[in-house]
Amino acid sequence: MRIAVVAPSCPLKREAAEQVRAIVEARGDCELKVHPQCFMTEGHFAGPDEARLAALREVMADPSLDAIWFARGGYGSNRIAEPALAELPETARSKVYMGYSDAGFLLAGLHKAGIAAAWGPMPQDVLRSGGEAAIARALDWLVRRDPSALEPEIEAPALAFNLTVLSNLLGTFLEPDFAGVDLLLEDVSEQLYRIDRTMFHVTSSKNIRKARRIRLGRVTDVLENDPAFAIDEAGIVEEWCARSSIRYGGRADIGHDSANRVVPFGSQNR
Amino acid sequence: MRIAVVAPSCPLKREAAEQVRAIVEARGDCELKVHPQCFMTEGHFAGPDEARLAALREVMADPSLDAIWFARGGYGSNRIAEPALAELPETARSKVYMGYSDAGFLLAGLHKAGIAAAWGPMPQDVLRSGGEAAIARALDWLVRRDPSALEPEIEAPALAFNLTVLSNLLGTFLEPDFAGVDLLLEDVSEQLYRIDRTMFHVTSSKNIRKARRIRLGRVTDVLENDPAFAIDEAGIVEEWCARSSIRYGGRADIGHDSANRVVPFGSQNR
Repeated sequence: MRIAVVAPSCPLKREAAEQVRAIVEARGDCELKVHPQCFMTEGHFAGPDEARLAALREVMADPSLDAIWFARGGYGSNRIAEPALAELPETARSKVYMGYSDAGFLLAGLHKAGIAAAWGPMPQDVLRSGGEAAIARALDWLVRRDPSALEPEIEAPALAFNLTVLSNLLGTFLEPDFAGVDLLLEDVSEQLYRIDRTMFHVTSSKNIRKARRIRLGRVTDVLENDPAFAIDEAGIVEEWCARSSIRYGGRADIGHDSANRVVPFGSQNR
Repeated sequence: MRIAVVAPSCPLKREAAEQVRAIVEARGDCELKVHPQCFMTEGHFAGPDEARLAALREVMADPSLDAIWFARGGYGSNRIAEPALAELPETARSKVYMGYSDAGFLLAGLHKAGIAAAWGPMPQDVLRSGGEAAIARALDWLVRRDPSALEPEIEAPALAFNLTVLSNLLGTFLEPDFAGVDLLLEDVSEQLYRIDRTMFHVTSSKNIRKARRIRLGRVTDVLENDPAFAIDEAGIVEEWCARSSIRYGGRADIGHDSANRVVPFGSQNR
């Protein structure tokens, strides 16, 4: 199992790359190829659009690679998604792709194109408290589809998104089919009024209303709402599900933390 | 000209209501009816959904009123928009509605229903530096359609939105037709990476791509982007317009400030 790491959004920290490399070497069941583009910087991004796109296309086309692991989130993968997903070589179609948060833009487009994608921990997560376990979980699934890495209650077909990323891909060329889907959502660093507004947007979508159910992962690092919002994130999601006649399926074990579990997109053979 | 003030989002400050009342009395060309609901509070909102909806429906149905002026923005008008716009009485259709920011949810739905709506200053704006001029501008347009209140370069049909509000109403029952529209956008209190992400979302819409042009109002109180984003708000909007083949029409004289001008929605007889 040869795994490439590229950074379509923001740069990977060198110490994260080194720690993940050490974990991989200790395992001995896979090889890691961290693309040098991961360490480029240009303003907000891991290098200019052209460099991020070129690195992604390079690893997608490389027949010696089995998996592409997005280095981290942040913001920016949507800026290169359209050309990255155009005229895909067959070698790009036979790999599996993993990440979460901003990488959801690419995961959505890959899944829509019929390619194996999965929500799961990313290399930069090694720097979180308990991050080694997150890396082990991601690799356990990438290398040997270990079922213990999975979000425990997913019912395929499933999809998982950062709520704000999902809101920003609805109506774009990246929007996948949500019919019958177990849809897991999470968010980070938002005020509760924004969660409420984004849930209004997302649950107003005819496509989203075809989902089998919505489940809520963790909403972490919530920014202060002034004044206090009165209901919490679970109450917000439950209310918008009720308003839009989508079944609310309770909480899910995903989030911007080291406990984040793997959610294979669609109905992949697990 | 009898003007009602209601607050479908957040509560109006009493001192703002008093200052606007004094301005109206000094003018002598209109009457102001500030609904007591404006001062209700429940968590984030100017009273619970039921109270905000009831006040809005009450003034919409009142045949003695000529205009409805939204008290202020914040967040929350989307939560009552669907019932507020259902089964509209004829008395609701003969009024003009003014506001901006979060009120854009209602303005969009009203315009879509064929009702006169306009982007313009709101009562709470009187508390801004130079706020009396903003109130005078709004009233000059409401009372006598004074052309000097208008954004100077609008070419009807025009629409104006807070960018983030627009992003959150695309795909919902509130989304109006953008074909041939002079579309003015502005935003406040966002990081530049969010402006970039939201422009990706908005300019990916097939409906938005039918706009005649996009013009950018002021983007104020920009939150720190860490690291710096490298391009400014005008560069961001110009780039996404170019990517989506929408004409970028330059800057517009609207924003979250006391210089904010009036933009009558659609092709109203001005």
